[in-house]
Amino acid sequence: MIVETKFVRFDSLELDCGATLSPVDVAYETYGELNKDKTNAVLILHAFTGDAHAAGISKETGKLGWWDSMIGPGKAFDTNKYFVICSNVLGGCAGTTGPSSINPKTGRPYAMSFPVITIRDMVRLQKKLIDYLGIPRLLAVAGGSMGAMQALQWAVDYPDMVAAAIPIAGTWRHSAQQIAFNEVGRQAIMSDPDWDGGNYYGKRPPARGLAVARMIGHITYMSDESMREKFGRRLRNKDKPGFDFSIDFEVESYLRYRGSKFVDRFDANSYLYITKAMDYFDISEGTGRLVEALEPTKARFLLISFTSDWLYPSYQSQEIVRALQALNRDVAYCELTSNYGHDAFLVDVAEQAELVRGFLASTYKQIQRS
Amino acid sequence: MIVETKFVRFDSLELDCGATLSPVDVAYETYGELNKDKTNAVLILHAFTGDAHAAGISKETGKLGWWDSMIGPGKAFDTNKYFVICSNVLGGCAGTTGPSSINPKTGRPYAMSFPVITIRDMVRLQKKLIDYLGIPRLLAVAGGSMGAMQALQWAVDYPDMVAAAIPIAGTWRHSAQQIAFNEVGRQAIMSDPDWDGGNYYGKRPPARGLAVARMIGHITYMSDESMREKFGRRLRNKDKPGFDFSIDFEVESYLRYRGSKFVDRFDANSYLYITKAMDYFDISEGTGRLVEALEPTKARFLLISFTSDWLYPSYQSQEIVRALQALNRDVAYCELTSNYGHDAFLVDVAEQAELVRGFLASTYKQIQRS
Repeated sequence: MIVETKFVRFDSLELDCGATLSPVDVAYETYGELNKDKTNAVLILHAFTGDAHAAGISKETGKLGWWDSMIGPGKAFDTNKYFVICSNVLGGCAGTTGPSSINPKTGRPYAMSFPVITIRDMVRLQKKLIDYLGIPRLLAVAGGSMGAMQALQWAVDYPDMVAAAIPIAGTWRHSAQQIAFNEVGRQAIMSDPDWDGGNYYGKRPPARGLAVARMIGHITYMSDESMREKFGRRLRNKDKPGFDFSIDFEVESYLRYRGSKFVDRFDANSYLYITKAMDYFDISEGTGRLVEALEPTKARFLLISFTSDWLYPSYQSQEIVRALQALNRDVAYCELTSNYGHDAFLVDVAEQAELVRGFLASTYKQIQRS
Repeated sequence: MIVETKFVRFDSLELDCGATLSPVDVAYETYGELNKDKTNAVLILHAFTGDAHAAGISKETGKLGWWDSMIGPGKAFDTNKYFVICSNVLGGCAGTTGPSSINPKTGRPYAMSFPVITIRDMVRLQKKLIDYLGIPRLLAVAGGSMGAMQALQWAVDYPDMVAAAIPIAGTWRHSAQQIAFNEVGRQAIMSDPDWDGGNYYGKRPPARGLAVARMIGHITYMSDESMREKFGRRLRNKDKPGFDFSIDFEVESYLRYRGSKFVDRFDANSYLYITKAMDYFDISEGTGRLVEALEPTKARFLLISFTSDWLYPSYQSQEIVRALQALNRDVAYCELTSNYGHDAFLVDVAEQAELVRGFLASTYKQIQRS
């Protein structure tokens, strides 16, 4: 399945902070065909550093999509049955307007003059895309991590447009610990002199700070168990067991490699804006009254969390489940056993795929009946 | 209790890496009186960023010792009964020789020419101090976190000098995750241009990198629960709920404050050397055969871990307990319930104090009898 990223430009987008962005580009991909009734569209929502390329092989880069294990012919999001859409989020750096985009008023990149955005702003832009594609109602919105936050926001903000929502390994508000990890990543970037107040475009980017931020991220995405299984205390060089500050352990080598690779594909200012959007995320808008916040929803829900995910622990999904049950919503929940930590929704997908497959099929059946 | 740090110089210290340091200074404090039989001495071993000032009010700084809640008249380490000693570790920056010390061969600070050190090297230097103080056998060695590693090493390397060992919230080898967090801290420091290959003495220190490293540390010392209780999502400024990159949440303010305060009291190169010593720590020396590694021990043991400590999780203490039981050693273990994460051994000490008090008393009784 060779796929191509498409682009669409919208005149403007109003933001939660009060500013209006104009114009706004969206990068997106689609897989499968929209049926005649337009009832088989599924919107996939990507996590923090994801992009529109969720499945298939990119015509441009030759790379496999980030959720190719879940999306494709015969897979959980079966492209023989469903029309699957994925777009790069607002504030991103993979085709959708973000801080690295050119501000038409100045002819230079926005950098830190880009307005601060929220998860709701991201969803508001996705809504424009779905309208543009002529889809009156989505069969499902689905995503892991930050994708789960967007799925929840969709179900709350556009209840008539969402038949089903699948928030995986997510939360209804960022906790102090989640904010803290993001803040340290931001500090690492902003402490790098090459960051230069965000004005590094066309110059040397804050590669060292961004790499450190990414290393912190990677530790939080894995689990104690999965790191032990993958690396243990294995030395990088058997003949050179240490006593200096070069790379001793394989885990050090892995982190440095992942940190440095990330710099090639991700914009440091996008890192700042998107983590801030996550930290602001609180579906209850500061009230803490989750049941009230979820009251507008009309969708069916499938929530999934993973036993070893300590970054978005199961209790956060369970709080959502309990609130939906209190509202008498149609909600299914499963805590899957996995050693892969938060990464599980990307790498340990066998059981997750079966849950999603069944849930989508029954939702589709319900819709055809009604 | 006004206390004063004392200093002693030793001619030389042989290190695991093959190098010899000469001379070596040790900063230490003592509380209480050594009895006539010299059977009431307890050696306290500090954690990563600790120092010799474990208890009482410092004559120099007016500050309370880092474990004052545990050490003093009538406290768990009762200075009416016991002679308590604490020294700054080798590689530190609070009086004991470390990378910021003057290398007598060059007249300048060692910086990165300081030899790489191990937990065993730290213990070897402490042994010199105990010999110097004329103590033939310690009633107990005790410490949390890196202090627990030293306590274990003492019990293995000098079994005839240790009647009892109290490793709290520790491990017998650093795991991949523990190495990973340390490595990110090191990378944050070494990425700071002010680090300058370690040669920042007399110039601007790598304050930004060191602050980021410290922030990461603080997150790992707390728990999800304790951060939620302490900060939640409270905003720093009620009137200014965000939409910019200044400090929004109290947890951000806390981390930035702790990061910047740390820079005033801790040397960045010491951060590198001490974290590396922890990462090298493996009491089994790479064999993974823990029972064999602990075979030389003769001490009684009390191990303590905390339910919410995810940096040094209970299973690591429990592995030590099982190995000691297999060796038929006298071992007590308790997993204490606490929300305070790894910090619990410093801040949530009521139950810990009772366990230590009883264990020390019964050890002392045993010794008097024999």
